[in-house]
Amino acid sequence: MADLPVSPLAPAEFPDLPKIGGVRFAAAEAGVKYQGRKDVMLALLDPGTSVAGVFTRSATRSSNVLDCQNKIGNDSADGAVIIVNSGNSNAFTGRAGDGSVRAICDAVADVTGLPSDRVFTSSTGVIGERLPHDRITAKLADLFDGLDDSKIRDAADAIMTTDTFPKGSAAELLIDGAPVKIAGIAKGSGMIAPDMATMLVYIFTDAKISRAALQTMLSELTNVTFNNITVDSDTSTSDTLLLAATGVSGVDVTGNAAFRAALHDVMLDLAHQVVRDGEGATKFVEIDVTGAANDADARTHALAIANSPLVKTAIAGEDPNWGRIVMAIGKSGAAADRDLLTIRFGDILVAENGWVSPAYSEDQGAEYMKAQNLKIAVDLGLGDGTSRVWTCDLTHQYITINADYRS
Amino acid sequence: MADLPVSPLAPAEFPDLPKIGGVRFAAAEAGVKYQGRKDVMLALLDPGTSVAGVFTRSATRSSNVLDCQNKIGNDSADGAVIIVNSGNSNAFTGRAGDGSVRAICDAVADVTGLPSDRVFTSSTGVIGERLPHDRITAKLADLFDGLDDSKIRDAADAIMTTDTFPKGSAAELLIDGAPVKIAGIAKGSGMIAPDMATMLVYIFTDAKISRAALQTMLSELTNVTFNNITVDSDTSTSDTLLLAATGVSGVDVTGNAAFRAALHDVMLDLAHQVVRDGEGATKFVEIDVTGAANDADARTHALAIANSPLVKTAIAGEDPNWGRIVMAIGKSGAAADRDLLTIRFGDILVAENGWVSPAYSEDQGAEYMKAQNLKIAVDLGLGDGTSRVWTCDLTHQYITINADYRS
Repeated sequence: MADLPVSPLAPAEFPDLPKIGGVRFAAAEAGVKYQGRKDVMLALLDPGTSVAGVFTRSATRSSNVLDCQNKIGNDSADGAVIIVNSGNSNAFTGRAGDGSVRAICDAVADVTGLPSDRVFTSSTGVIGERLPHDRITAKLADLFDGLDDSKIRDAADAIMTTDTFPKGSAAELLIDGAPVKIAGIAKGSGMIAPDMATMLVYIFTDAKISRAALQTMLSELTNVTFNNITVDSDTSTSDTLLLAATGVSGVDVTGNAAFRAALHDVMLDLAHQVVRDGEGATKFVEIDVTGAANDADARTHALAIANSPLVKTAIAGEDPNWGRIVMAIGKSGAAADRDLLTIRFGDILVAENGWVSPAYSEDQGAEYMKAQNLKIAVDLGLGDGTSRVWTCDLTHQYITINADYRS
Repeated sequence: MADLPVSPLAPAEFPDLPKIGGVRFAAAEAGVKYQGRKDVMLALLDPGTSVAGVFTRSATRSSNVLDCQNKIGNDSADGAVIIVNSGNSNAFTGRAGDGSVRAICDAVADVTGLPSDRVFTSSTGVIGERLPHDRITAKLADLFDGLDDSKIRDAADAIMTTDTFPKGSAAELLIDGAPVKIAGIAKGSGMIAPDMATMLVYIFTDAKISRAALQTMLSELTNVTFNNITVDSDTSTSDTLLLAATGVSGVDVTGNAAFRAALHDVMLDLAHQVVRDGEGATKFVEIDVTGAANDADARTHALAIANSPLVKTAIAGEDPNWGRIVMAIGKSGAAADRDLLTIRFGDILVAENGWVSPAYSEDQGAEYMKAQNLKIAVDLGLGDGTSRVWTCDLTHQYITINADYRS
């Protein structure tokens, strides 16, 4: 497919990411599918690194995801490797897919002397085509020769598929006077397009924390970051988020609120960047639901609004079509009372008491909808349940990208 | 909005619908919103008519729906009236909406001498604007003057909103040598666009059957017809299906399989016509899921495929993108085993044993996707559960219709 223009919602530039002690990166042109660009990245993690992960819940998930899930719960004092290719997702390739993962892990184990269960792989790109893993293993020597603690940007570039910009985020904080760093990269431009737009995220920190504590923190923070974004309601067969804590800073962050907050911010920033690169997106939308019977109901309502094609097309058209919000709440299946709903666009009170607000004017709403960053707030008036999710609009460009690209 | 071109999937012409003994129709230009076209229809049902109904499950359903639901379970020997306007949905209009329904019902009761709980109303069109019900009640005398047993086509025209063609279907059968007739009309061109594209269906028969038996039959048949179609996954605040059996034929159809089959065919034909008028649709798609763990799982998979923006855009692009079908099955939440899946496009075996079929060629798939009517079949290989649903593709025209029309 032809090169896409950079999303209008992209950050001005890729951030300066700090070096993380205990992690080195390399990237290479393996020619898995793309020509003339880097398409494999490798991260080598020093011994003593804790690795945690969260993965797609898809029932048809890829061999790579299944393999990572088998390994992620193991405690180990060994180092570890993360190796990722773009261009081919190795998904729905039957037993051949399992064989490709094994071949890559075994080859890395041979080069490094690590056990193969310390090698984590991801693949993203076309589905259903056999992964030419030989092209990847043929580059291992080059990759290990090129390892460098400053090459995280190369890694961010190598994992892109339909992404229109590389995604990175970082945080540095002092804990009891000692510096701790976090740096992460991501790719993804649909919640999924299983051919080419899976979400992959790799976050590194020099903090010290056990694998189990790191996993708990990661799972909890995923529920309020990556699990609350949606581009098109579709779910990848390959979504993977790995978090590696090398411990090189010597700072134990177990139970540390400041570290947790910093990690949250990095995860949320990366999640927002994925939405901002949503296929065809021209608007970034935050949806806040409050007053629901409980948090689960609030999330059901928020995702019903965020995933509604009619809401998303109205936003694309800069149409303050609050009636479609009412519709989405009505269809979500969670509890709602028409006459207790309050709807706001930004600070503008749009609807209350089961009807449009007397103070609201359509001109005011239409003016608000012209902004690139929008907030939609719904209060159900039923209880204390809240949820916040992020999405983008649904535009002609989404249809163009997804209807045309394999032909 | 500008007039839309007639859907390429429309039937060649509106069918000849038989007169149904015991029902007369009228339509009028009330100017609720549209000018220069009929926008109110009325059906007068003779005493002894059984009326059954099914309605949207939306938690924010309209005053009209709530009122119909309150009345539909009543047995009555009185006649009945169905009165429907287009142009304004009377949805999310607070207590004023309830007042409008009451005003219309009371006015009809005054003219007819019927109790107001024998008056069933529907409204479809813009949401959130007060219904000018005076314009409707001002036309009641004209409507009753104009009643005629041959005017069902006028009724079909009067209820259209963004529909690009009027929808009708009929069946005539002999039961023990005696003729029984069924005639129905419908409107709807999204599963919903709450502003203008709610689904409304009115079916009439001269068969004789109790209200309770008719309701049971209607509810069961709805589950395999109207509840298995989807255009955009959104659910109207106003969806209404009313079925009236006048008994004028004298033929008791309680438990009669031939009548049930004929009614099923009329309902399915109308449901298919709604999909064929799906906003922007260029392809009509039947999705068959078999081999699921149970019927509920089969339906979950079928609707996940039918509602996936990525599947629907691929179909629009005539792309035989079976990987997106695998993705949709994976995300549905129902049981699936990657390695037991079989996928067919029409008679073409595409994927089996967790991978693309060795016999399948992409050219063959691409050729198949050029057809206007498509069949996608998925076998899960797990059990006996089956489901069949119908949908359309997702095109640029859908975005145009829904992003642009209020502005």
